[in-house]
Amino acid sequence: MTSPMLRLPLWFALAAVACAAISPAHGEDGYRLWLRYDRITNEPLRASYAAAIPSVTIIGGAIPAPGPNGDPVPLSPTLATARDELLTGLRGLLGNDIRVNFRSNMGAPISGGNESYILDAGPSGISIYSRTDIGALYGVFSLLRQIQLGRPLDRLERIGEPKIQRRLLDHWDNLDRFVERGYAGQSLWEWFYLPEIRSPRYRDYARAMASVGLNGVVLNNVNANALILTPVYLRKVAALAEEFRPYGIRVYLTARFSASIEIGGLKTADPLDLEVAAWWKKKTDEIYTFIPDFGGYLVKANSEGQPGPQDYKRTHADGANMMADALAPHGGVVMWRAFVYAATATEDRVKQAYSEFMPLDGKFRDNVVLQVKNGPLDFMPREPFSPLFGGMKKTVMAPELQITQEYTGQSTQVVYLAPLWKEVLDTNTFAEGPFAASIRERMARLRGTGSDTGGVYSPTSTVAHVADGTLWMRQVGATVIDGNQQPIMVPNQFSMIVGVANTGTDRNWTGHPLAQANWYAFGRLAWDHTLTAEAIADEWIRLTFGSDPQMLATMKKILLGSRETMVNYSMPLGLHHIMAEGNHYGPGPWPIANTTHPEWSPPYYHQADENGLGANRTATGSNALEQYAPQLAALWGNVDTVPENLLLWFHHVAWDHQMKSGRILWDELALRYQQGVDEVRVMQRDWDSLKGLIDDERFIEVKQRLARQEADARDWRDACLLYFQTFSKRPLPAGVEPPAHDLAYYEAAVIRFAPGHPGAK
Amino acid sequence: MTSPMLRLPLWFALAAVACAAISPAHGEDGYRLWLRYDRITNEPLRASYAAAIPSVTIIGGAIPAPGPNGDPVPLSPTLATARDELLTGLRGLLGNDIRVNFRSNMGAPISGGNESYILDAGPSGISIYSRTDIGALYGVFSLLRQIQLGRPLDRLERIGEPKIQRRLLDHWDNLDRFVERGYAGQSLWEWFYLPEIRSPRYRDYARAMASVGLNGVVLNNVNANALILTPVYLRKVAALAEEFRPYGIRVYLTARFSASIEIGGLKTADPLDLEVAAWWKKKTDEIYTFIPDFGGYLVKANSEGQPGPQDYKRTHADGANMMADALAPHGGVVMWRAFVYAATATEDRVKQAYSEFMPLDGKFRDNVVLQVKNGPLDFMPREPFSPLFGGMKKTVMAPELQITQEYTGQSTQVVYLAPLWKEVLDTNTFAEGPFAASIRERMARLRGTGSDTGGVYSPTSTVAHVADGTLWMRQVGATVIDGNQQPIMVPNQFSMIVGVANTGTDRNWTGHPLAQANWYAFGRLAWDHTLTAEAIADEWIRLTFGSDPQMLATMKKILLGSRETMVNYSMPLGLHHIMAEGNHYGPGPWPIANTTHPEWSPPYYHQADENGLGANRTATGSNALEQYAPQLAALWGNVDTVPENLLLWFHHVAWDHQMKSGRILWDELALRYQQGVDEVRVMQRDWDSLKGLIDDERFIEVKQRLARQEADARDWRDACLLYFQTFSKRPLPAGVEPPAHDLAYYEAAVIRFAPGHPGAK
Repeated sequence: MTSPMLRLPLWFALAAVACAAISPAHGEDGYRLWLRYDRITNEPLRASYAAAIPSVTIIGGAIPAPGPNGDPVPLSPTLATARDELLTGLRGLLGNDIRVNFRSNMGAPISGGNESYILDAGPSGISIYSRTDIGALYGVFSLLRQIQLGRPLDRLERIGEPKIQRRLLDHWDNLDRFVERGYAGQSLWEWFYLPEIRSPRYRDYARAMASVGLNGVVLNNVNANALILTPVYLRKVAALAEEFRPYGIRVYLTARFSASIEIGGLKTADPLDLEVAAWWKKKTDEIYTFIPDFGGYLVKANSEGQPGPQDYKRTHADGANMMADALAPHGGVVMWRAFVYAATATEDRVKQAYSEFMPLDGKFRDNVVLQVKNGPLDFMPREPFSPLFGGMKKTVMAPELQITQEYTGQSTQVVYLAPLWKEVLDTNTFAEGPFAASIRERMARLRGTGSDTGGVYSPTSTVAHVADGTLWMRQVGATVIDGNQQPIMVPNQFSMIVGVANTGTDRNWTGHPLAQANWYAFGRLAWDHTLTAEAIADEWIRLTFGSDPQMLATMKKILLGSRETMVNYSMPLGLHHIMAEGNHYGPGPWPIANTTHPEWSPPYYHQADENGLGANRTATGSNALEQYAPQLAALWGNVDTVPENLLLWFHHVAWDHQMKSGRILWDELALRYQQGVDEVRVMQRDWDSLKGLIDDERFIEVKQRLARQEADARDWRDACLLYFQTFSKRPLPAGVEPPAHDLAYYEAAVIRFAPGHPGAK
Repeated sequence: MTSPMLRLPLWFALAAVACAAISPAHGEDGYRLWLRYDRITNEPLRASYAAAIPSVTIIGGAIPAPGPNGDPVPLSPTLATARDELLTGLRGLLGNDIRVNFRSNMGAPISGGNESYILDAGPSGISIYSRTDIGALYGVFSLLRQIQLGRPLDRLERIGEPKIQRRLLDHWDNLDRFVERGYAGQSLWEWFYLPEIRSPRYRDYARAMASVGLNGVVLNNVNANALILTPVYLRKVAALAEEFRPYGIRVYLTARFSASIEIGGLKTADPLDLEVAAWWKKKTDEIYTFIPDFGGYLVKANSEGQPGPQDYKRTHADGANMMADALAPHGGVVMWRAFVYAATATEDRVKQAYSEFMPLDGKFRDNVVLQVKNGPLDFMPREPFSPLFGGMKKTVMAPELQITQEYTGQSTQVVYLAPLWKEVLDTNTFAEGPFAASIRERMARLRGTGSDTGGVYSPTSTVAHVADGTLWMRQVGATVIDGNQQPIMVPNQFSMIVGVANTGTDRNWTGHPLAQANWYAFGRLAWDHTLTAEAIADEWIRLTFGSDPQMLATMKKILLGSRETMVNYSMPLGLHHIMAEGNHYGPGPWPIANTTHPEWSPPYYHQADENGLGANRTATGSNALEQYAPQLAALWGNVDTVPENLLLWFHHVAWDHQMKSGRILWDELALRYQQGVDEVRVMQRDWDSLKGLIDDERFIEVKQRLARQEADARDWRDACLLYFQTFSKRPLPAGVEPPAHDLAYYEAAVIRFAPGHPGAK
């Protein structure tokens, strides 16, 4: 601003203001996720890291010996990736180049599982020990994360080992790149352009996945298209597998059960038909010629119109086992979904999966896993856990969590899902009583050699311990120690956890900038389910926005409260499935027009009438409680002991029932809805206080979305209360804002062309 | 790389190599388009600019007077935008901040049209004179472009004035964000999230548009949905209009002709029904309450299943005029598409639009423009111009060009389209003979005062002069000077040109990195159709990739040859409409299964038989030639004088017809296909030579696409020659590679889920 003043009449100058915000490149557009590697601004800290890390040495079982002259030998793609990540990361964080060394461990054993690592900060730098290349890469990501978090090197978390073996994202992506229940643009997989044309985004995706420890991806929708299994597409799948492989990520595919008809030319898909089994065997062999480390099949069968073995009067086990036999020689697995219910069934929908699968326990092959949604219904803002987790003791059980926010605000609302997932994972199923049997007892049981009550390792029967295999002793490769501190051989089983992806082509990957936290949290929990939702939020915020204490505290408050806020303004007190039909966005507690699917109509679930509200699932009702352990059935079956946040899930409760607050149900319900709206407004004010503490770009993005969320919350409150009021016939209590419109308005308001809704128009 | 060596056995270090390419941020991801503003690397040049531009002064009719103390007065959004662009641009290019001054011109007239500007390099900096704010912004973009091009300030192009008034992109975008014939991801318009949530991309889009002088956008598909005209959507449209307005960009919408039924509740859409006319008037008034500067309606009527006035036995003029009357009070226009043909018509499809519209010449309101595709068929790689351009003398004619590469390689093939467009624009229609009448004669004719042969301004009757209004004297606001150098009042008409957009949510906007050149070229030609394809390519490459002479020459060669190469390997010698059904990607010269649309079946066009190949459109055939001026009909109607590149468009030619090369038709055809393949291979080699001269990122992106293009070119050659060989029964001449597969293979090869294809599955 040192230019000479022009001598012209009537002129004035305007200062160059706010130009930093004009940049068209959108530096803070969210693309970098939690892998930012910006220079550490705390200069003493940066300098201390730089001094202490002149080099990093990767020491592992898979490191090649050097060439005859000690020259570098070509490294595996995974180790080259680890090196590049280290160099890029530390150059960004510390501002200088380090030396990366590789060392063979000369055959000495390195303890831990195949994916584990040990970090060691020594006088001449950091060493990363691992048995495998991928363990080294995980070690690199852990080191970089801890440096970004500002953790002193003498207090590094030194050991990393995943608690669950197969940690997958399921993408509900169609071949035309539509993502079912996707709210972040199109599918990342550019099928038309593959295999020749490979988006650089494939590697960035794999990098993000590996950085949080995820190691598998189901590329395509559970509502499957058999074409994915044809050579034209397998060549494309192989290209993606090649892009992902350096990051330790295996590719899996959904298998349409009727593929033997659609692309195989057979007349049947009967799993007991020998031709069908032979076709799947041949097809599976073919897949492995394209993708040698192919992970396996995910199958949605006899569910919501998908074909399945029941079309031929066979069981789910018949179907799964036929495919499992084709995969077994290659080490592949079948993920069989338990999400089944039938419009024609008279049984309470939330009971049907348990009724269907419990009789099959013990009948599945070892390489079959039953993939079970966290709750018995369908990813509601709150559900009890699925009783299958406590029920099926002889089957590998994989929780399916939904990262994409189908019922939780999609990509306009802030809903941090880790608290929901932790709530499920930490719930005690009581499948083995208050605590599980000791490890030795369980081993003896598995061996059929009778009871042995010795030993010390006694996990509770939580869903997490079902998932990680420790409860039923299914973990392979983990270090399982018995009561005498001896390692124990475990059966040839495995463990798995699955999240339905929230990713898409949106520049920031997840649509809502804060929804990145859900992808991150899923990966971190899949690796270690003992992490708390708060600890993960703390990590993610620091990595993604920085460490300003005020910002950190405020954003953590927003994230950690967001799920309960969403429950309050949408489905409080155990209400469920009262969302708009089809797009599942916004309220829709009234009956739907489609009468062929009574179980899609909200009154099926809320049972509102003049007497009260809620589904009676006690013994006097559908008795869904009988599918849970007696302890839980007793606790939840009693209207006085059931947690209020599940009250209306299990009980039909009178409008004037007295709640713990002293208020009657109707007033409590109305005030919960109002509370949800009020909490969104607090989130808005909290967010506004971040102005200047974070970049303008993301500040504005989230601010705009919070405005939409506030309007959405009001719609939820007004629509639901107006509708339920037609039954309660009571006035809104003091403190609840009057609705903006009448009930007819909300019933007529239809959102057109909603994202992620198949067939939306 | 200064770390101490670790004293460990068997270890070796790997150098940190090629890490600059690892950056996850993808700096060269194409997002910045031609607006890069990277620091000028020629240091003396940079320093000379910096010294010569201490400040820029914007002087214009719309600059506000200063406040009482001489303080800055709030500027219009457009001037603020101009200032920000200047500051950002010059800071990037020169590395320093300049001063931006604003000055009123104190009422003195500034010559030129509303959008024109004058640049003046004086001793104390640059002055930009303009009558309007948007003129100033165009001046800013022009200045920045010229500095990026390294043009010395004493040789600036000083005057800028568009030759055509309304310069539009048409987006074929649906409300669900599918883009019909779009190959760059989803629609940029996030309908579900509007109006609250506004992607920063809206402004970046508007900025790119304004930077090349485009000033209008039709937001939605010509295959229209009436919902866009409902208040829910108009609020969203208004938000986009608000984002675009500072950049001088007006919003237009497609109007579904039956909207009065679908959203108006009427029983009819008969344009002569008074209720219908009243509904459109009311609807139009309503739109202007949302968008005060709304541009108008684009209508595809009675075309490919769209409703229209003929459903009620009314003419296209009846329909257009009814809407035009509703728009006229607000200054809006109707763009009526001439793209009509009927499956039931017996007339040659390429004749139907002319037959339909010629009788209506003179019957349209002043604010109606007929929007005519460049050729009489449908955006083929080569067509003659549409005879309507030479025919309709009393109607405003707007060329519709297709930027999206529906028939020209979509987003996998390099096809620079400026040569195609220039070929059309520069073609003489001979509508007024070899040269048009003088301006005074034509003015006299318009006034009905008889002939006056004086005057000097005598444009040729090119399509460009039809489009810019100079041929028929329709230009408003331009400085039209008669033979005595006097300004002349012209009728209340206007001029327009339209390009069908190739933009989408892909990070680089256009899918293929080099397809950005087509967006750029369309804008530049819409502003000034006298620019050459080569000059525009030169500009675009310099702005987008830099000015290395070898790189520049190579890339220019690739771009400028690419369209003819594509013609050679797909539809040489005047062949047309022999692409695959539905997705229009790749070859499909054989008959289609659908027999209800004979005019969708390629044999309708190529007429291959044992005697020869090509459509007879002479007097002995469909006589489409009669729709052209006699000079052209004579030239093109003679097989000896017709340009060979249109030979098979107009003539059915014997397989052994002797071509100019001395070869027979069959051999020439085969060798043209081979030549196309060979030329792609040369493009590949040329591109490979750019390694290191441009960034790796775009280098690899294009290299991968060229590999696909080479495979596609071979498919075209093999499929077409195998098919035509079934008629010619002649061997492939020497020099033509044998086909890779048999004809049945190509006929069976169906591309599934192709992008941009409505209903693809």
